[in-house]
Amino acid sequence: MLCRLIPHRSAPSGVLSAVRGLVSLSSTRVCAPSAATRSPSVCRTKTMPPRPHIHPQVRASSNLAKQKVHISSCATALTVSFSDGLTSKFDSIWLRDHCRCPECFHQVTKQRLVDTFHIPADIQISAAVLNQSGDSVELTFAGSTHKTVFQLEWLKTHSYNPTLETASHNLKRNYKLWGAEITKNLPVVEFDEVMAGDEGLAKWLKNIDVYGIAFVKGVPPNCEATEQLGRRISFIRETHYGAFWDFTADNAHADTAYTGLALQAHTDSTYFTDPIGLQLFHMTEFTGKGGKSLYVDGFKAAAQLQETYPEYYELLTQVCIPAHSAGDPKTIIAPSPRSFPILNIDPITEDLYQVRFNNDDRSVIDGKTLIRINSKTGAKVDVKEFYAALKCWVSILRDQENEVWIQLEPGFAVIVDNWRVLHGRSAFTGHRRICGSYHGYDDYRSRVRDLCYGSSGRLDI
Amino acid sequence: MLCRLIPHRSAPSGVLSAVRGLVSLSSTRVCAPSAATRSPSVCRTKTMPPRPHIHPQVRASSNLAKQKVHISSCATALTVSFSDGLTSKFDSIWLRDHCRCPECFHQVTKQRLVDTFHIPADIQISAAVLNQSGDSVELTFAGSTHKTVFQLEWLKTHSYNPTLETASHNLKRNYKLWGAEITKNLPVVEFDEVMAGDEGLAKWLKNIDVYGIAFVKGVPPNCEATEQLGRRISFIRETHYGAFWDFTADNAHADTAYTGLALQAHTDSTYFTDPIGLQLFHMTEFTGKGGKSLYVDGFKAAAQLQETYPEYYELLTQVCIPAHSAGDPKTIIAPSPRSFPILNIDPITEDLYQVRFNNDDRSVIDGKTLIRINSKTGAKVDVKEFYAALKCWVSILRDQENEVWIQLEPGFAVIVDNWRVLHGRSAFTGHRRICGSYHGYDDYRSRVRDLCYGSSGRLDI
Repeated sequence: MLCRLIPHRSAPSGVLSAVRGLVSLSSTRVCAPSAATRSPSVCRTKTMPPRPHIHPQVRASSNLAKQKVHISSCATALTVSFSDGLTSKFDSIWLRDHCRCPECFHQVTKQRLVDTFHIPADIQISAAVLNQSGDSVELTFAGSTHKTVFQLEWLKTHSYNPTLETASHNLKRNYKLWGAEITKNLPVVEFDEVMAGDEGLAKWLKNIDVYGIAFVKGVPPNCEATEQLGRRISFIRETHYGAFWDFTADNAHADTAYTGLALQAHTDSTYFTDPIGLQLFHMTEFTGKGGKSLYVDGFKAAAQLQETYPEYYELLTQVCIPAHSAGDPKTIIAPSPRSFPILNIDPITEDLYQVRFNNDDRSVIDGKTLIRINSKTGAKVDVKEFYAALKCWVSILRDQENEVWIQLEPGFAVIVDNWRVLHGRSAFTGHRRICGSYHGYDDYRSRVRDLCYGSSGRLDI
Repeated sequence: MLCRLIPHRSAPSGVLSAVRGLVSLSSTRVCAPSAATRSPSVCRTKTMPPRPHIHPQVRASSNLAKQKVHISSCATALTVSFSDGLTSKFDSIWLRDHCRCPECFHQVTKQRLVDTFHIPADIQISAAVLNQSGDSVELTFAGSTHKTVFQLEWLKTHSYNPTLETASHNLKRNYKLWGAEITKNLPVVEFDEVMAGDEGLAKWLKNIDVYGIAFVKGVPPNCEATEQLGRRISFIRETHYGAFWDFTADNAHADTAYTGLALQAHTDSTYFTDPIGLQLFHMTEFTGKGGKSLYVDGFKAAAQLQETYPEYYELLTQVCIPAHSAGDPKTIIAPSPRSFPILNIDPITEDLYQVRFNNDDRSVIDGKTLIRINSKTGAKVDVKEFYAALKCWVSILRDQENEVWIQLEPGFAVIVDNWRVLHGRSAFTGHRRICGSYHGYDDYRSRVRDLCYGSSGRLDI
């Protein structure tokens, strides 16, 4: 490593030192691009002419008391030693591409304006200047007077070589898992509060975010009020069943949901590429018998499966299950790709993010599906092992300690996060009128980020 | 293997033989369940009491001329030797679970009615009878008079032990890749034809399915007609930008789409978990300069990348790119999981099924994202290699031979498959009024399956 390191020792406590160093590096291109960055012939069309060698300048400003911030730069990389002693390196092309100035990044739309593909692969840093308080660095690149400023904290959060652990890396949703005991203390808010302003809405959203299920009491028992309630979160996600729904068990659609049959715990629309995010459900009229509502925390069930039968948990994260909705005439809905696991794992964070389970809508399991994806231990799945895992999962879902049975009534609406919480019902007879709406997961999360997560909800954009 | 094989030799040409054999197997449980199927204690809640040993009966009916169909059964599996000599084995639990009779599978809703989780893991086949024409088998299971009939052709299509190749396995979409030359022969249908009936609609859909882009001429230059046209395919997919859109470059939303700026080739809504499927676009008024529309076949570009730089192709199928839509107040849309590859591969078929690329909406690339998913060769990605792959991809997209530039005009609407075709435009000045709609990918595919693929479009459900 030929890049010079310019240490900035901390000033005496309470005093800003005003040392301003200006150092020329003795050689250029000391960090040679790897073989991988060769310009392929097909990509040459817009290659810039060769640039003259650059001697980057590194200027050291003062730094804050008790902090030890160092920067060093060679022509194609900046190295920062942060105040806690951790060091990370940033490539020049990455730095230029991530410039967040108004010329390079639209301040309102938050969209990139700089044309990434006009940045030379080996763009040269001509100067790197640490500011007086030691919390930001200003970069200039060869052949341009354009200046790019980065907060060091931002660089640390987005470091990659190596990746330094920061608070934002550990930002996780604060799930509270629950079972039958939740009936003693249901997460409930008042309809009037939700309708009155963002504070009440945030309370409701927070419940959905934490529990995956939330109740609203005092809802006028009619469609209009229920629809207004749903629209506090987002527009309604229309499906082939319609937008806002209001139905009795009249078999209006060819789906068992529209009958009086019992329904085992399931998530809705496993047949969509993007299953619906929230289901708002309000029973506005009921004069019959039965029809208790069932809820199960799928994330808790998954955690129990992982704890007791990790091999089955793994199987259900790896075997993709096809599903369909093909009851209504002219409708043959299936997801793309054709099948998804029951337990869906974020490939980056490795967190479970979505449960997708409806045994009734499952299509044929065959040689095309009895395969483990992302497996390091061989692809083939024994069909008996698949059924054993499925049975184990369902035995946990049907464990009485996990089942929450509630007799809903007019005025008491429920909303579930359909990527986490399974729902079902006991059979019923008589007149039962239901209304409600679906909402997209992305739109729901957008609302939660905006209202419940403060500045961290703005995401790393 | 103790299961007896009962061969059925083909009858003399043109003659149905009427041999009816009835054979008891000499032992039960000859196919012992594997260790993986042990009943875990947590799953015992609904375990059935031990069943007595069963002696399955295999009855051979006649078979068709020139066919050699054999079946054999032990208590927990059925083995079928098909007329082409290929053999596959089917486990009893799988057979019982896949019963398609009206009691077990709702004939209208196409949903499973049998409770998979009440089927014993080692359910015993008590009899297996081949029908006279040798094309179906009737099974009876121990402890029940329920009869399950399978067409042998269906079993073959869904075989898994081993998986036998069948026509349906090779059912692929018949893509035609295109470049600039498509302007000489655009896929166009008449508005009146599409509106008149399913035949015209199927023609339009077929064009979208094959080319990922399709034009409609003779559209009345107004919103009403354009909306009616879109609704021939499906309801409109609403987003945070609204449902049917009708706008001029008035910056109505904080997104560059609502300006007069040039837009490089991109796909829409990379920030959604499920990017919009179809974009219908109709320029109803234009009195300015510029504003030519650009289209690029992303599947062709991907094929070229794979051909010329397979290592970059692989990288773009493995590195997940975060994206966002955060311009409008209170909107912080991002997909779940947070990032997806540019080139999305079906984990089962390994086909490319979705291109997701908008460099402007790309969020920060950092240590959280510079990781290969599903990689067998190590996870870390060099940032310079990432940019090299990205540049190579874009140089192919910007290759003049791949770019299709069209000056749209009132009456000439275009629809693109946004999972395949990238679009852009040159900068413009003056008055330009656009209307159109988004449609969900699942809803679009449902319509195509129903109208363009005949019986194979009904899928394996």
